[in-house]
Amino acid sequence: MTDKIRIAIAGYGNLGRGTEAAIAQATDMELVGIFTRRDPGGVRPLDAGVPVHRLDDIERHRQDIDVLILCGGSKNDLPEQGPALAASFNTVDSYDTHARIPEYFEAVDAAARSGGNVAIISVGWDPGLFSVNRLFGEAILPQGDTYTFWGKGLSQGHSDAVRRIPGVRGAVQYTVPASEAIDKVRSGTRPRLSTREKHTRECFVVLEEGADAGQVREAIITMPDYFADYDTTVTFISEETLRRDHAAMPHGGFVIRSGESGAGDRQVVEYSLTLESNPGFTSSVLVAYARAAHRLGRAGESGARSVFDIAPGLLSPRSAADLRRDLL
Amino acid sequence: MTDKIRIAIAGYGNLGRGTEAAIAQATDMELVGIFTRRDPGGVRPLDAGVPVHRLDDIERHRQDIDVLILCGGSKNDLPEQGPALAASFNTVDSYDTHARIPEYFEAVDAAARSGGNVAIISVGWDPGLFSVNRLFGEAILPQGDTYTFWGKGLSQGHSDAVRRIPGVRGAVQYTVPASEAIDKVRSGTRPRLSTREKHTRECFVVLEEGADAGQVREAIITMPDYFADYDTTVTFISEETLRRDHAAMPHGGFVIRSGESGAGDRQVVEYSLTLESNPGFTSSVLVAYARAAHRLGRAGESGARSVFDIAPGLLSPRSAADLRRDLL
Repeated sequence: MTDKIRIAIAGYGNLGRGTEAAIAQATDMELVGIFTRRDPGGVRPLDAGVPVHRLDDIERHRQDIDVLILCGGSKNDLPEQGPALAASFNTVDSYDTHARIPEYFEAVDAAARSGGNVAIISVGWDPGLFSVNRLFGEAILPQGDTYTFWGKGLSQGHSDAVRRIPGVRGAVQYTVPASEAIDKVRSGTRPRLSTREKHTRECFVVLEEGADAGQVREAIITMPDYFADYDTTVTFISEETLRRDHAAMPHGGFVIRSGESGAGDRQVVEYSLTLESNPGFTSSVLVAYARAAHRLGRAGESGARSVFDIAPGLLSPRSAADLRRDLL
Repeated sequence: MTDKIRIAIAGYGNLGRGTEAAIAQATDMELVGIFTRRDPGGVRPLDAGVPVHRLDDIERHRQDIDVLILCGGSKNDLPEQGPALAASFNTVDSYDTHARIPEYFEAVDAAARSGGNVAIISVGWDPGLFSVNRLFGEAILPQGDTYTFWGKGLSQGHSDAVRRIPGVRGAVQYTVPASEAIDKVRSGTRPRLSTREKHTRECFVVLEEGADAGQVREAIITMPDYFADYDTTVTFISEETLRRDHAAMPHGGFVIRSGESGAGDRQVVEYSLTLESNPGFTSSVLVAYARAAHRLGRAGESGARSVFDIAPGLLSPRSAADLRRDLL
C-alpha cells in the first residue's frame, strides 16, 4: 500500500516519454502503467520495470489509477480519447487546437461529470502557462495590450506542413520572434504589430532525389495560413545535417502585458520561457497539474477544468502552511 | 440598485490613491467610500464625489461594502487592522513582512472565519505575483533553483533607514539588480550567488546643514541587515535635486526558475516586471484580487487566503467560457 499518487500515461511518443521522466522527479507520485495503441511489446519505457498495456484494456485498471495523463496528439487522438477516458479517469491533457477548445471543453466536461471525474484540459505552456499569464495581465492591467511571441523554437505543425509538400523528404521549421518587435513592446509604447513584424520562419529542408528546389521553396513561402503572411527563409540541407543539427526540440517564447495603471503610469509584465526541450517542459507542466486533478477529485469535484480554474497551491506537493512560510 | 461590486478603501496614502485609480478602470466595480484615521475633511480623493469617513465609524457601513481593500502599512497598520476588519468585511491587503506572514495569516484567518468573511492577505507583486511564480517554478521544475532579483527600484524601507541617520534631511535608496548575475542565471548554469553579487544599493542623500558627509556615508554603508552585505554608493545631492529627480516610485524585478526536466534538458522560466509606479501596480493587483474575494465570499467560503489559493479565473470580470475562448 502506497500513499503516492498513482499516475498512468496514455500514449508513448515524445510527450509520453517526457512525462515518464517528469514523474520520476516527483517524490509524491508513482507511474503505475503506460497504455499504448501500439503493440505493448514494442514499447520500451525509460524504466524497464513499468508495465505497458494495450490502451483498449485500460478499463480493467480503473481501480489502480488516480490520474491518467493523456499524451496523444490534438489532431487525431485527443478529440476522441479526451471525452472517452474522462468518463472513467481523472485526466490531464495538452489539447492545443486553440480554435476548438470550447467544443472540446464541453465534450470532456460532460464525460467527466457523468463519471464523477476531474479532467484538466489544455495544460502545457501554450495553451497553459502562457494562457495564465495572458489572463493575469488583462485582469491586473485592464488598460493595456497583450503580446505573445513564440520561439525561437521548432514548430511541429509547420514542420509537418513542409514535409507534406511533394519533393520534400525531411524538414524542420523554426519560428523566430523578431527582436526589434519585442524591444518595442518591452519599452511600453504598445505598438501595433503585423503578423510579419512579429515572427519570421526558417525552414531546413531535405529534398527527394531529383526534386525541384525552386518549386519546393515556392510551395513553402506561398502556403496560406502557415507561411504566406511571414518572411520565410528556406535552406536546403542533407539528410545527415538534418539528423545531426536539427534533432533537438527547443522552444520558448514571451507573453508581455504592457499597460497603464490608474494614474497613467506605464507598467510592463513579461513572462518568458527558454526551453531546451519543448516536450520535456510540457510534460513537467502536465505532471504538476496531475497533482491538482488528484486533489480536486479527492475533494469530490467533477467536470472539466482549465488552468484558469486551478489555484496555484494545488500544483505543489508541499502544504499550504509551508508554501506561505517559504514562498509567499 | 447596482450590480457592481461595492469596494471601499481603508487608508489613503500612495497605495490608497492608486487603488482608487485602479477601481476607476474596473467596469464591474464601484468605490463606495474611503475610510481614514485622519480627519476626513483633510482627505481629497481623486474623484471628489467619493465619500470619506472616519475609519472608527466603518462598522456602520457594513451593509454597503462587498470588499474592503486595506491600504495601510505592514509595520503599524495591518497587524492590528487586518484581523480587526476581517471580522466584519471581506478584505484584501498587501501585508509584506515576509517573516511574519504565518502568524499574520493565522490571526486574520481566525477573525475572517468568525465573521464568515474571506480575507486575501499579502497581495501585490512581492509578496503576490512573484510568490505565484516562485511556486509555479518549483512545482513544475522540482530539480532547479529559483532566483528573485529586485529593482531597479526605490525601496521604501531602505530609504526610511537612511533618513533615520542623524545628519540626514532627506534620502532615497534604489535597489539595483546586477546584470551580470541575471545573465548568468538566464544562461541556465544555476550559479550560487552571494547577496553582494545579486544587488547593489544606490543612496541619494540630502544632508542637514553642517552634517559630516563622511560620517553619514560610513553610517549608511556599515548598517547591518540594510547595507553592510552590499556594495553601496552614496551620492549627496541638494534638496531641490531630490524633489525634482527622485519623486517617482519605479520598481520591478525578476523571478527566474532554472531547472532540468526529467531527461536532463535545461529549462529557464522568467517573470519580470518593469514598473513606473510601484504603488500604482500593487493597487492594480489588489483590485483584481478584490474581485476574487467577492466571488469566494458570495460562494459561502470564509477564512484567510493567499495568492496560492486563488484560481486565476477569479481575477477576471469575464466569464469562464469567454476566457477559455479568448485567452486559453
